[in-house]
Amino acid sequence: MKKHNFSAGPCILPQEVLQKASEAVLNFNDDNLSLIEISHRSKSFVEVMEKARSLALELLGLENKGYKAVFLQGGASLEFLMVAYNLLHKKAAYLNTGTWANNAIKEAKAFGEVLEVGSSKDNHFNYIPKGYTIPEDADYFHCTSNNTIVGTQMKAFPETKVSIVCDMSSDIFSRQLDFEKFDLIYAGAQKNMGPAGTTLVIIKEEILGKVEREIPTMLDYQVHIAKESMANTPSVFAVYVSMLTMQWLKDLGGIKFIEEVNNKKAALLYAEIDRNSLFTGIVAKEDRSTMNATFTLTDVSLKETFDTMWSAAGINGLNGHRSVGGYRASMYNALPLYSVQVLVDIMQELEAKK
Amino acid sequence: MKKHNFSAGPCILPQEVLQKASEAVLNFNDDNLSLIEISHRSKSFVEVMEKARSLALELLGLENKGYKAVFLQGGASLEFLMVAYNLLHKKAAYLNTGTWANNAIKEAKAFGEVLEVGSSKDNHFNYIPKGYTIPEDADYFHCTSNNTIVGTQMKAFPETKVSIVCDMSSDIFSRQLDFEKFDLIYAGAQKNMGPAGTTLVIIKEEILGKVEREIPTMLDYQVHIAKESMANTPSVFAVYVSMLTMQWLKDLGGIKFIEEVNNKKAALLYAEIDRNSLFTGIVAKEDRSTMNATFTLTDVSLKETFDTMWSAAGINGLNGHRSVGGYRASMYNALPLYSVQVLVDIMQELEAKK
Repeated sequence: MKKHNFSAGPCILPQEVLQKASEAVLNFNDDNLSLIEISHRSKSFVEVMEKARSLALELLGLENKGYKAVFLQGGASLEFLMVAYNLLHKKAAYLNTGTWANNAIKEAKAFGEVLEVGSSKDNHFNYIPKGYTIPEDADYFHCTSNNTIVGTQMKAFPETKVSIVCDMSSDIFSRQLDFEKFDLIYAGAQKNMGPAGTTLVIIKEEILGKVEREIPTMLDYQVHIAKESMANTPSVFAVYVSMLTMQWLKDLGGIKFIEEVNNKKAALLYAEIDRNSLFTGIVAKEDRSTMNATFTLTDVSLKETFDTMWSAAGINGLNGHRSVGGYRASMYNALPLYSVQVLVDIMQELEAKK
Repeated sequence: MKKHNFSAGPCILPQEVLQKASEAVLNFNDDNLSLIEISHRSKSFVEVMEKARSLALELLGLENKGYKAVFLQGGASLEFLMVAYNLLHKKAAYLNTGTWANNAIKEAKAFGEVLEVGSSKDNHFNYIPKGYTIPEDADYFHCTSNNTIVGTQMKAFPETKVSIVCDMSSDIFSRQLDFEKFDLIYAGAQKNMGPAGTTLVIIKEEILGKVEREIPTMLDYQVHIAKESMANTPSVFAVYVSMLTMQWLKDLGGIKFIEEVNNKKAALLYAEIDRNSLFTGIVAKEDRSTMNATFTLTDVSLKETFDTMWSAAGINGLNGHRSVGGYRASMYNALPLYSVQVLVDIMQELEAKK
């Protein structure tokens, strides 16, 4: 029986996408060749790449608005570097909401002044800083929309004339936002988009070409845009599966549809965390992520019993991040509401046993 | 019917590897989860990564000799940059044997003096330069063992005290070499190792940590070695399929075995190119690649007939690189001798028709 997969990433993908991906590894497009043994410059694969790039813009409502989508390699972690390499002239503003924001800040420091305009480090990053000021002369403002490790999510983004650069690795395609507010969005594929191995970057083209430093070829967004994500051999399989997942989302009704499902899943689980006396949420209520719900047992002596129960129910990936502990239920786009119900049932069973 | 896949890369992989990869996309390790939806820190995947790293060293005979193997992202093109970032203090020597060597030279120039010690540019790179001198004070000597585009291959490597860095993207695991001669070997996976999306780098650890510049986290070999290729989420699927392919090669008898097969395939095809008056080889005979055989028709008016014939015989990927023209038969490890025979038969049929 298929497991209830609450893994934080790589994570659950739609079953029909896995089915198609599995078939493509043996015989792609009925062409008697595997997807992974054809040239990336073959008509079949060029079509996949073009479709992936256009679906990304379409789902976000960013077509014909000066944005380009590229699929790169190296994960969001390489984007921490590329963003600074391509955009940081003198000074950039960063919001520090945890591990990933921190890593982005670290990489940027080699390229200019980095202003930490807000931070929730004082309380283990269990809330999103608010009321911070972004200096008007900053080259850009960088933020992380969702923090997988602790389970916080930005519900609002600042009103500013400064370019907003956003790491949306763990909640892209999960909720409607005014995406035109952002000049650069990047996301490792391995949450709501596809398997690990590719990174989507969406860039408002007009912000590029302004730094004076020489940018190495493979780190230069302008190169990747000009070469349509084929500056070198792309991560073929990961791009293909991402394309399938975006097509699946589009067919379902896009972000508008999935946001409602995601809200239902999150509401169901958080209501139980708040109702059930055996559990406590880890982060500030108003900043709770719809993607990653973190919680602990109020009585740690129940840990073994609870772990045995959810594991026996076919639940996978519920342990919290090693730096936080407790539990983390990741409810990405492909996770059915039913899986959350199974978890909630177990939480209630535990309460009844006690 | 499965095609005879002469694609230059991404290219043919062993059928049994494709079969296992296809199954793993649906159900990995009989765990009721897909390979691509489990945590990269799960026991199952950590084992895959460790096996991939150790198989790479084992196949090359580099175990317990001070080398580390890491699986990165970004392709060999990102290695052009990383090699220079990590190793170039003042001056490096490069051998220019074509497009890829050229690109490596371009990236290195931002980091120090780049000495082109030899070049075959004068004759469209259709031979390997010989008799060049490597200055003893060079930080390293960089070469490309096999040149996919034109079809040349280095049959010998210089005797020098300088560290040899080699891009083996298109012939790694295809032939026995004294691999201890090299201090750094890198290879994009998508030829003899696996699908596109990961890059193998093998590094003699003692050569690292000597440059003074600050190296960005994701470009720092020492970081990737310390984190055992898990500095961030690796390209899970590509690493898994690479591991399977290396295991397949080991089970067959390793490089020693496959080299004999590769030599037979190359001998069969080159003999026909030389014998058949309708065809001419493109590169110097002594530098002919066993991986990529390039040739042209002596009478271009036969092009349409020949193309129709090989295409009808189920041959795929025989067109030459767009910068060279003519034909290119890539005969990587997984290509059966029989496929080469099919091509040779077609060449003889064409001759008989004429």
